[in-house]
Amino acid sequence: MRLSTRNQLTGTVADITIGSVMAIVKVDLDGGQQVTASITKDAVEELQLSVGQKVTALVKSTEVMLGVE
Amino acid sequence: MRLSTRNQLTGTVADITIGSVMAIVKVDLDGGQQVTASITKDAVEELQLSVGQKVTALVKSTEVMLGVE
Amino acid sequence: MRLSTRNQLTGTVADITIGSVMAIVKVDLDGGQQVTASITKDAVEELQLSVGQKVTALVKSTEVMLGVE
Amino acid sequence: MRLSTRNQLTGTVADITIGSVMAIVKVDLDGGQQVTASITKDAVEELQLSVGQKVTALVKSTEVMLGVE
Amino acid sequence: MRLSTRNQLTGTVADITIGSVMAIVKVDLDGGQQVTASITKDAVEELQLSVGQKVTALVKSTEVMLGVE
Amino acid sequence: MRLSTRNQLTGTVADITIGSVMAIVKVDLDGGQQVTASITKDAVEELQLSVGQKVTALVKSTEVMLGVE
Repeated sequence: MRLSTRNQLTGTVADITIGSVMAIVKVDLDGGQQVTASITKDAVEELQLSVGQKVTALVKSTEVMLGVE
Repeated sequence: MRLSTRNQLTGTVADITIGSVMAIVKVDLDGGQQVTASITKDAVEELQLSVGQKVTALVKSTEVMLGVE
Repeated sequence: MRLSTRNQLTGTVADITIGSVMAIVKVDLDGGQQVTASITKDAVEELQLSVGQKVTALVKSTEVMLGVE
Repeated sequence: MRLSTRNQLTGTVADITIGSVMAIVKVDLDGGQQVTASITKDAVEELQLSVGQKVTALVKSTEVMLGVE
Repeated sequence: MRLSTRNQLTGTVADITIGSVMAIVKVDLDGGQQVTASITKDAVEELQLSVGQKVTALVKSTEVMLGVE
Repeated sequence: MRLSTRNQLTGTVADITIGSVMAIVKVDLDGGQQVTASITKDAVEELQLSVGQKVTALVKSTEVMLGVE
């Protein structure tokens, strides 16, 4: 499926913390920065996410803010 | 100001397209991937964004989805 | 690609309005309700969206609110 | 109150899972698809949500993405 | 309709700028701060928004970030 | 860092509830209304948030909806 979602950043799962209904997944982006995702525990289980796995982090462009020094 | 926002990715403005009230800004992330932000035209003008400028792309962790092949 | 995104609703494009940098796409869901998406004009063009096309509307669960009478 | 929110989908609560501070609510849409909402535990309690209850799932149009095969 | 949406801030429309498909509405909150909303042009027209009108600005709690000096 | 984020509301932390991976923080806005933020537990700890602390609540304009009676 091709997506309208502008931001599709490739990386590797670095850490997974499972909560009661939500989970925090950290992804080391290819190229060197890190992204944190707050997704449902159900999604982590359905995707069978594990540390070291290749994933794509997706973000709709309307969710991106910019900061300048 | 220190922010709760988990994702703060550094990069350089690659392209700016100004619309009627919104604008699309593309940022080349340090390390090699690209992020697109849909922000208000007002914000582009207030921050005086220009191509080549160093910026930080910010995304709340609740806005990040993950995909696996 | 399998997605963490909990909501993947199938439907048919009913209407597309292209703005300066954003676009509004209305999707008739299979089963009878309608969803409106505000996405970038670039996405509409890249996906070559057209009225009558089968699409999936995706929404992260953290974006869904509930109302009761 | 009339809302700017473009997407107001009617349905019935199918499942509620309460976490520590967040909750996951599944809603069977009228017409046959399902939506999952991640909302606060406080909201579930204030609205006194229960399985079988009629609800409206609300989503801002800027939160909807589209996918095509 | 009672909403799960945690943030419902009352105020008065201070300014409306209509774009091609989106619109920017500024709301002076009761108590003295200001909120800006990027909503669809369709929503502005359907709600017949006008400067001076009493409105409620709604924000899902998962969309709120915090900053500290 | 100056931000594209249109909404930066000042206030004081009124309440913090820590969950398993998420947390709920209530902020009394200067001027008298209240905002609730669902942020990660990690963010609460990193910012060392405490009741009575001065904070800024940030919301991207694309996340704000409007309601009228």
